[in-house]
Amino acid sequence: MRETWVAGAAMNRFGKMAETGREAGARVALEALDRAGVEPKRLGLTIVSNAFGIAEHQAHVGPLLNTALGIPEVPSFTVESACSSSSAALHEAFVHVAGGFSEAVLVVGFEKLSHLDTLAATSYFATGADYTFESQNGATFPGLYATIANAHSQKYGTTPEQLGAVAVKNHANGARNPHAHFQKEISLATYLASPMVASPLRLYDCCPFSDGAAAVVVVAREALPRPAAEPLVIRASARAGDIGDIHDRESLTSLSATRRAADAAFQRAGIERREVQFLEVHDCFTIAEIVALEDLGFFPAGAAAKAGADGTTARDGRLPVNPSGGLKAKGHPVSASGAAQVVEVFEQMNALAGTRQVPHAEVALTHNVGATGSSCSVHLFSRR
Amino acid sequence: MRETWVAGAAMNRFGKMAETGREAGARVALEALDRAGVEPKRLGLTIVSNAFGIAEHQAHVGPLLNTALGIPEVPSFTVESACSSSSAALHEAFVHVAGGFSEAVLVVGFEKLSHLDTLAATSYFATGADYTFESQNGATFPGLYATIANAHSQKYGTTPEQLGAVAVKNHANGARNPHAHFQKEISLATYLASPMVASPLRLYDCCPFSDGAAAVVVVAREALPRPAAEPLVIRASARAGDIGDIHDRESLTSLSATRRAADAAFQRAGIERREVQFLEVHDCFTIAEIVALEDLGFFPAGAAAKAGADGTTARDGRLPVNPSGGLKAKGHPVSASGAAQVVEVFEQMNALAGTRQVPHAEVALTHNVGATGSSCSVHLFSRR
Repeated sequence: MRETWVAGAAMNRFGKMAETGREAGARVALEALDRAGVEPKRLGLTIVSNAFGIAEHQAHVGPLLNTALGIPEVPSFTVESACSSSSAALHEAFVHVAGGFSEAVLVVGFEKLSHLDTLAATSYFATGADYTFESQNGATFPGLYATIANAHSQKYGTTPEQLGAVAVKNHANGARNPHAHFQKEISLATYLASPMVASPLRLYDCCPFSDGAAAVVVVAREALPRPAAEPLVIRASARAGDIGDIHDRESLTSLSATRRAADAAFQRAGIERREVQFLEVHDCFTIAEIVALEDLGFFPAGAAAKAGADGTTARDGRLPVNPSGGLKAKGHPVSASGAAQVVEVFEQMNALAGTRQVPHAEVALTHNVGATGSSCSVHLFSRR
Repeated sequence: MRETWVAGAAMNRFGKMAETGREAGARVALEALDRAGVEPKRLGLTIVSNAFGIAEHQAHVGPLLNTALGIPEVPSFTVESACSSSSAALHEAFVHVAGGFSEAVLVVGFEKLSHLDTLAATSYFATGADYTFESQNGATFPGLYATIANAHSQKYGTTPEQLGAVAVKNHANGARNPHAHFQKEISLATYLASPMVASPLRLYDCCPFSDGAAAVVVVAREALPRPAAEPLVIRASARAGDIGDIHDRESLTSLSATRRAADAAFQRAGIERREVQFLEVHDCFTIAEIVALEDLGFFPAGAAAKAGADGTTARDGRLPVNPSGGLKAKGHPVSASGAAQVVEVFEQMNALAGTRQVPHAEVALTHNVGATGSSCSVHLFSRR
């Protein structure tokens, strides 16, 4: 298996896009290629993620994107795995390059739903859950994650203030990130006064609907003898699945796909958890960050809720988590979120993160979840 | 690169399904696994294709399918490449197995649109074209392929009777295929009397909207020392892209993605075209079969139109084309069509094709196109 790099990565400002998804995708792709110093014509494959392109009347967007890049002859396909679509696409890029099938693969994730009303946008999001047993019966993601939050609270005593600490931290980070949808700090008092969405989850527990685009250029080390930027070595790319419906699982307080993907990733990479210096984890809701940190093995079960409140996971804490602001503050354009986590790792490792720069940026982990954890991708990166 | 096999393949009867896509997908998956003699728990990955699952309110269907198969822990993702979705999924399965990332990968393609009215179903299909420059302006696939047919007719003198001969042949094959949507022969007179859809394409030039599901089990040779059925050796799996909009291409009478994918496939396989004994090609419209046979290199440009009429491509002709009935008669459930071509090759090579059995079934080619040829997959198979 060949050593495989992220040679470049870029994203736009998440929020509301005037342009179409494909236009935004082409723009960030060109920026990522430029950062990598890789000409489009060197690409052997383009992998798109755009789960809800139908909302823009557009499937099969890879050939259009490649045409915009001047490489219509290059094959392409679209990967969908709900909110983990672009990390699943990254995994396929890794497989193609590490396995010797391509020298360079472009991953582009984008989503645009802001032209829809909230009900329509919610309906698209809800397709990531099980229609027959969940969404058809009114269960949407705030309700499903609220169920997880309640179970976690009952089992471990997790408090509203601990959930709120995650929101306060991630907004503080987002305030320093020019790519973020929300670039303002919030106080715990603001959090506690915000409207209840699905008890115990308040407005500020929930990530927003965002438009956005992010791109990642994956190359074989041999293909890029003189990288234009500090490349990220992909030390491991692991994925796992789980039962779709949370009501059929053994536990409501743990996502087993995260546990299995993380164990596989650390084993393949030969890295210990204590070596990881910062993380981008899937915080679609504040409770999701807490559960992720436990399932990834960085905190014992029930212990991660304290880590936000006591500063452990702050940007300048012992283990910075979501220095980008996370899905919570940076925003969550479904099919761009996994790739955007890699953009943050790229910017941190290249000292491009400005005032949100973490103290140590040599080894990082990204964690991206589909739906309520029925798909999970974990990637480990290090500097050369 | 490891020798990689199709160990089993199965499909349902295309047409109108009462069950959901995911139910049909699970059913054909179990049948393909049973034919392969592979237990679900041996799978390392499931790749779904279901381009228009949103029409059933369901994205992220892989975990639900795996749960139905009793393997929720197995990772999954969905591949979309318009009408070539499941052949693109097959290519990813090949990459995972040939590259040593998995021992066994399941590909499942399904589509259900029959619960929609024709306009809504057409709107879903049209998302495979370019919304900005084609479908938004009223161009749908019958019109786009009619443009190709008119150009072919002007350049090479292709006649309505020659288009009709393709339809007559494929309906004759479909009449012998218990999986086919249309199991009845038609005469040339019936063809010529059928309503005009988009001149020169008549009703019988067009494949139908079909529901359907098909599954393919891909394994490493080493992983299956005693195969339960005669496996197909995947001699090559090649994909290519092209400009999305036909109005921007150099030629209207040739799909360059087919030419490039075919050239790559033959080169990688070390097979000559004259060794291929039968083909399943993408005949979404009759003109598409003619153009495909020319672009694949089996006939000179302009010469394939005669091959249907003179019996060359009949089931008992020199080069049987679409013995299954093709998309034209077997039906075209978008994301199942590429996988269903492989089911036909599997049944032919295992002498399971009944009265549609071709005389020689040792080397075969499948050809699957997305939209008007902006994506193309070509696979070459041989018996061991």
